[in-house]
Amino acid sequence: MIADKMADLVKNSSAIRAMFEEGKKLAEQYGAENVYDFSLGNPNVPAPAEVKEAIIQELEKEDPVVLHGYMSNSGYEEVRKAVAESLNERFQTSFHEENIVMTVGAAGGLNVILKTLLNPGDEVLVIAPYFGEYNSYVANYEGKVVVVSPDTETFQPNLKEMGEKITARTKAVIVNSPNNPTGVIYSEETIERMAALLRKKQEEFGTDIYLISDEPYRELAYDGAEVPYLTKYYENTLVGYSFSKSLSLPGERIGYLVIPDEAADAAEIQAGANVATRILGFVNAPSLMQKAVAKCLGAKADVPYYDRNREAIYEGLKSLGFSCIKPQGAFYLFVKSPVEDEKLFCEAAKKHRILLVPGSSFACPGYIRIAYCVAYETIQNAMPGFRALAEEFKLI
Amino acid sequence: MIADKMADLVKNSSAIRAMFEEGKKLAEQYGAENVYDFSLGNPNVPAPAEVKEAIIQELEKEDPVVLHGYMSNSGYEEVRKAVAESLNERFQTSFHEENIVMTVGAAGGLNVILKTLLNPGDEVLVIAPYFGEYNSYVANYEGKVVVVSPDTETFQPNLKEMGEKITARTKAVIVNSPNNPTGVIYSEETIERMAALLRKKQEEFGTDIYLISDEPYRELAYDGAEVPYLTKYYENTLVGYSFSKSLSLPGERIGYLVIPDEAADAAEIQAGANVATRILGFVNAPSLMQKAVAKCLGAKADVPYYDRNREAIYEGLKSLGFSCIKPQGAFYLFVKSPVEDEKLFCEAAKKHRILLVPGSSFACPGYIRIAYCVAYETIQNAMPGFRALAEEFKLI
Repeated sequence: MIADKMADLVKNSSAIRAMFEEGKKLAEQYGAENVYDFSLGNPNVPAPAEVKEAIIQELEKEDPVVLHGYMSNSGYEEVRKAVAESLNERFQTSFHEENIVMTVGAAGGLNVILKTLLNPGDEVLVIAPYFGEYNSYVANYEGKVVVVSPDTETFQPNLKEMGEKITARTKAVIVNSPNNPTGVIYSEETIERMAALLRKKQEEFGTDIYLISDEPYRELAYDGAEVPYLTKYYENTLVGYSFSKSLSLPGERIGYLVIPDEAADAAEIQAGANVATRILGFVNAPSLMQKAVAKCLGAKADVPYYDRNREAIYEGLKSLGFSCIKPQGAFYLFVKSPVEDEKLFCEAAKKHRILLVPGSSFACPGYIRIAYCVAYETIQNAMPGFRALAEEFKLI
Repeated sequence: MIADKMADLVKNSSAIRAMFEEGKKLAEQYGAENVYDFSLGNPNVPAPAEVKEAIIQELEKEDPVVLHGYMSNSGYEEVRKAVAESLNERFQTSFHEENIVMTVGAAGGLNVILKTLLNPGDEVLVIAPYFGEYNSYVANYEGKVVVVSPDTETFQPNLKEMGEKITARTKAVIVNSPNNPTGVIYSEETIERMAALLRKKQEEFGTDIYLISDEPYRELAYDGAEVPYLTKYYENTLVGYSFSKSLSLPGERIGYLVIPDEAADAAEIQAGANVATRILGFVNAPSLMQKAVAKCLGAKADVPYYDRNREAIYEGLKSLGFSCIKPQGAFYLFVKSPVEDEKLFCEAAKKHRILLVPGSSFACPGYIRIAYCVAYETIQNAMPGFRALAEEFKLI
């Protein structure tokens, strides 16, 4: 028998697996080009050419014993230094290599930091709608997820409720902006108010509350929108970054943590993250890819491609009577379901070979998530299906 | 404050860190070429040329969206199939792709399988001397490590004591052959007797006991020694493999688990490992490296180089009166300390700029480990120091 907790997880994850299987079956039945899969956040835009060049350059010039070898569990010193300097240049911060821990993507980074911080029973606030995997990451270390319910007007964090839910056991708050699943960017005003609230609560309880900023979508911002760099607003900020979306490298598992000197117990957290990286079995972030991304810190995937998709899907659905907030970043659109039980809508969409994710997966039922990191043609070709759904659900 | 458990781990890991720092200081003082660092299992032999060729080939021909993209959490289907077929050819097994889960090295694989299997309090047997990281891997999932004490005659597992220590709570036994730190290969006779013992105990307690074979050193075997493939001897065997040593890719974090159909609850374990890979934050093994190793399954690092080192260090130390078993595999030599407290010997060795790891780190005090994955010249140049130590400790 497998572990009890794992048996539950396997059972619950079978819904998503069932969707995959259904997608595959639909593709076999109707042809892949006639199935409109908006369910996955897998970038469809290729990695920029710099990545391939950087990998080949490293293979040609670096000693393979170094290039593929062990290094400090936190990563190559020169890679960490390059990341720190790039951040300093972009955000006027003053990080150095000790503040950077290279990680196996942002998911790896979040696990490392939660392993480092959490005692059993410690509370971690998450702000709905949120990436459902946070539940597992926190549970891995016997932490307790406390959900702040969504503000469905703006999808900015509900700070009033956040204040009410912070207790003496609150160890961390996870924020994700640009947000999965809404595409909303938390405004500077929001960040400033959140920082003030957290400081007040720290004082009230005599604790340290860490703000963990999960930032895989930082580079995907549209219309010139600014994404505030949170360490500048709140001392106890820890950043989890990933190159998965910015460089279209999700399969390579490469990202980093930022642990600023200003954070309480920074040296212990840095040392703990180094140990956690090792004992969780990551050991270190993939070595060749560390050196490759260090050469591509100024590069970006084709964001204008996603922007065109964003306009097409947003304007398309709006004209059909669907209701949603225009995303400022990431590559998701969070649409109000025309029926309260959004799973019924997802089922109906499947009949038009359109695959969507119900908002309940993000602790926000009544909504559906559309991942528009797909071919532009997929959006165009799905529109007749969306029109039929709009008619079926009496939006037009 | 960081987590209590992590604070302890940081404190305990500082001994190893101190050694690193001391090594660095010695290198500054005397020059790196005059410091003989035998402390690390970091291969000094470069990856075979096939690896570089395979990576460049993939970069040239594969669609980057696929090459660097997400796939099933267990890995690319064609990679898993290639691994299964290669094993079948080499070991006359009959695996298929569902039996293979690509992992972030063997350390990642062990974490995935322990997360999948362990309920809190479940017992995991380890056989001293053993890789100290197993303690952390088991503790990550609230398992309890039960140590079988070493048989210092042969360094084969002490099966009598193993039989006594198996209880109704024993969920798994971890074995590692070729062994770190002894270089011993568990013989076919040992394996057959161990399999019989485990079957008997399963029957006695009405449980399933998984034999987890940690095999990063499988390909490093000398004098034509055979390393038995354990799934052929015991149904409930799960294998954790790594390309870290066989292809000299430790920094790339690439390996795989084998979960045979014959294992009890195989389908649940396969599904659980897929979920565990995701929620522990690995998400998947690095994608480009998956495809590269699939093209290099027949390749091997320069094993004769290690073999020459093995002869040099073994014969050299033996002629100086040191006592040790001749390693049949891996790249470690486990030497009896001339004083009971081997840490004193390690301290004395440092004065000759020789860095060693005390056996206590492997639950086997009174011995020291020498990692001979170093330049041949390092061994030659360290010999005068070893001679001085032999004289100091009255071996000659």
